[in-house]
Parts: sequence; structure tokens; C-alpha cells
Amino acid sequence: MGKRAVVLLSGGLDSATTLSYALDKGYECACLIFDYQQRHRKEILQAKKVANFFKCSYQVLKIALPWKGSALLDRTIVLPKNRIEIPKEIPITYVPARNIIFLSFAASYTEAIGARAIFIGANAIDYSGYPDCRPDFFYAFERVLAKGLKAGVEGQKIKIHIPLVKKTKAQIIRMGLQMKTPYHLTWSCYQGGRKPCGTCDSCILRAKGFQDVGVKDPTGRK
Amino acid sequence: MGKRAVVLLSGGLDSATTLSYALDKGYECACLIFDYQQRHRKEILQAKKVANFFKCSYQVLKIALPWKGSALLDRTIVLPKNRIEIPKEIPITYVPARNIIFLSFAASYTEAIGARAIFIGANAIDYSGYPDCRPDFFYAFERVLAKGLKAGVEGQKIKIHIPLVKKTKAQIIRMGLQMKTPYHLTWSCYQGGRKPCGTCDSCILRAKGFQDVGVKDPTGRK
Repeated sequence: MGKRAVVLLSGGLDSATTLSYALDKGYECACLIFDYQQRHRKEILQAKKVANFFKCSYQVLKIALPWKGSALLDRTIVLPKNRIEIPKEIPITYVPARNIIFLSFAASYTEAIGARAIFIGANAIDYSGYPDCRPDFFYAFERVLAKGLKAGVEGQKIKIHIPLVKKTKAQIIRMGLQMKTPYHLTWSCYQGGRKPCGTCDSCILRAKGFQDVGVKDPTGRK
Repeated sequence: MGKRAVVLLSGGLDSATTLSYALDKGYECACLIFDYQQRHRKEILQAKKVANFFKCSYQVLKIALPWKGSALLDRTIVLPKNRIEIPKEIPITYVPARNIIFLSFAASYTEAIGARAIFIGANAIDYSGYPDCRPDFFYAFERVLAKGLKAGVEGQKIKIHIPLVKKTKAQIIRMGLQMKTPYHLTWSCYQGGRKPCGTCDSCILRAKGFQDVGVKDPTGRK
């Protein structure tokens, strides 16, 4: 058995790139997809397509957060539109403890299948407001794994890989294109519509990324 | 608004004592109950009864761990019976990352309701094999909350209270009796039967606790 990893897959551009990266590094990847009642649930379907594209296994985990409190969970909250600059403060799309929850399931899955690596496409540059996307958070979480998992106390380190954490969207896309990441299958828009809205923060970041690289978005978005 | 806390409630003796303790310390408590397809699902019903007894609000969260790998999730695994001494190694009832997952949801709930405290009835004495029941694990998790939550990076510390962590079962029961903990409503047995089996580790620990205190178990168990 080769080296195995659990890869968090959202259906977006960053996590698809991360999966390409982990495969490129020789990991056999088991993907974890979360259905957390996000307004952009379409990304779940796209995540499955990305996993299938790479012939990776995946699990879809359903999570219900009855307390809401985030624009990504509550459709009555209006998303910011057409922002050129994303403020440095924590955005209303912040979901309390989202990456803590995602990583906790990833930890359980990693231990259950005997893997020793978790890959997550978190990024601290473009969307710097999310506290659970910063390197310090992931280092702290690695310590939790060392202290709280059977594997950890038995001396087996489980590493959290964050290959995109300090890259711009353009750098991520360049890296992904080199590894034949299927960007045509990815979904970034925060809105749950049939087509990307083109105006939410996520759409704008994506468009700017492709523009900076000088490549057309394969989903046909401008 | 007084000080608020999220209390993890399992329906067992330890978490009921912890809830009594948090209330005794003046916290307004919101309880979090997990339905994780445990074989002893009866404890969920009992947890609700304990919350209702204290007139506390509660949320039941459903979690499915499709990867199993624990005797508490997989009914085909035979539980140890009639053990006088519980070995120091990690028991087969260990669920990978269970407390990591529970605390991650507790963190989200805590932040969503503006609380600053989490109470968990973890214990490192009786069942010392579980790595996610030891103080070091909880300290590491507090650091994750400081780094990964909006509240944390805004300088508001969320504390994880582990009042039972170094107490024996007898000490826990003595403490709980002083605070009128409704032990008659609690459920400890790992088996999912109609009555406690009396032979699993959890039943034996409970019986020994009441015996050491010299009090009859109000559920009528010997």
C-alpha cells in the first residue's frame, strides 16, 4: 500500500487544485465532501465529478448546523456584490468553526483508513478574514491530532498539508493548470443558482485569477 | 444576559454531573446531544430527560461516521464483559476523533450563541485509555479555538471546562449527589438493550462507583 491521504474536496477551484497536488506528490487520495446545507449546494455535485475525474474514492458527509449564523447557511442574508476589494475583516460568509468541524471529521476518517496525511485547500491570501484558513490555526490543529488521536499518542504524526495557504488565486491556477486540474468541473459561486452569479466575492476572485494568468475560465465564465 | 455555556450531554452519569456543576457555577446552559449512531442510542433519550429536568435548552445533532471502526458504532464487534480491571491501553470502544468532532460542533454552537464556555464530562481516570479524554488534549483544543474562531482572534477566550477529568467515579457521584444530579434519569450501559447489561465496562464502572460511595444506584441497578 502506498502513502494515503484524506483530501477535503469542496467542488471549488482551490480544493480541486489541492487534490491534483496531492496526487502529483504520489498520495493515494480518499476525498471527503461535506453537505452542510450550504446555499451553493451545487458544489457537492461538482466535487463528486472532480473526484471521479481522478478516479478517487469519496465520502459525502451530511452535517446540519441548526444554529445558522452565516450567509452561507442562511439564504435570507444578502451576499456582498461586486466588491473589487475584499475587506480584511471577517466576512459574513464566515461559518463558525467550519474548518474545525471539517478537520475533525477528516481526522476521524484519516485514522479509520490508516492514512497519515490530510490535505486542505485553505488560503490565507485572497480571503484573509477567515481565521480558520491561517497557518497558525492548522499548526494548532495538528497538535490536537497528536494529543487526541490513537495514532497521535502512539507516536504517528498526522500532518495537515496546506499547499495553497500562501498563494494568490493566479498562482493557484497556474499550479493547477500544470497538473491538469479539471477546472471545467469546478464551482466557485456562493449563490445557489444554475449559473455562477459573477458578482459574489468568490466569482470575482475566480475571474480575477484567470484574468491575471491570462487564460480563459474553462467553465465559460468571463 | 448572564454567563452562558454549552454543555455536552450524553445521557450518562458524568455529563449529567457536569451539567449540574455548570448550573451550580451560575451558567445558563445550552446542551448539545449527539446522535452518532451509537449502539447505546437509548442514552439520547435519557440526555433529553436530563436537560428537561434542569429546564435547559438542547440541540440534538445527527452525525454519521460511515467508516465505523469502533465497537460503539459496529454492533458486530463484541464488547468486553465482566472486566474487573480496565486495561490502560486504548479500548475497542474508542471512536476515532469522537471528542474532536463533538468539541468542534460545540465550538460552532458556542460562537453562534455568544457563549464563552464549553463544559465536557471527560474523565481521564477510570477510562484512561481514551486519548481524547486527557487534559493535554483539551488544552490543545483551546488553542485551536483561540486561533480558528472569530471570537478567538478577536481576543475572546473560549474556555473548555473539564471538571471531572481527574476524579474517580465515586468522587463524581459524591459531587453529583450534593448538587441533586438526577442520576435516576441517566444511562451508562454501552449495550443498546432495554435494561443495562451489568457486564460492560461502563456498567461495571458505574456499579463500582455507587458501591464505593455506599449509595444505591437510583436506576435500581445493583
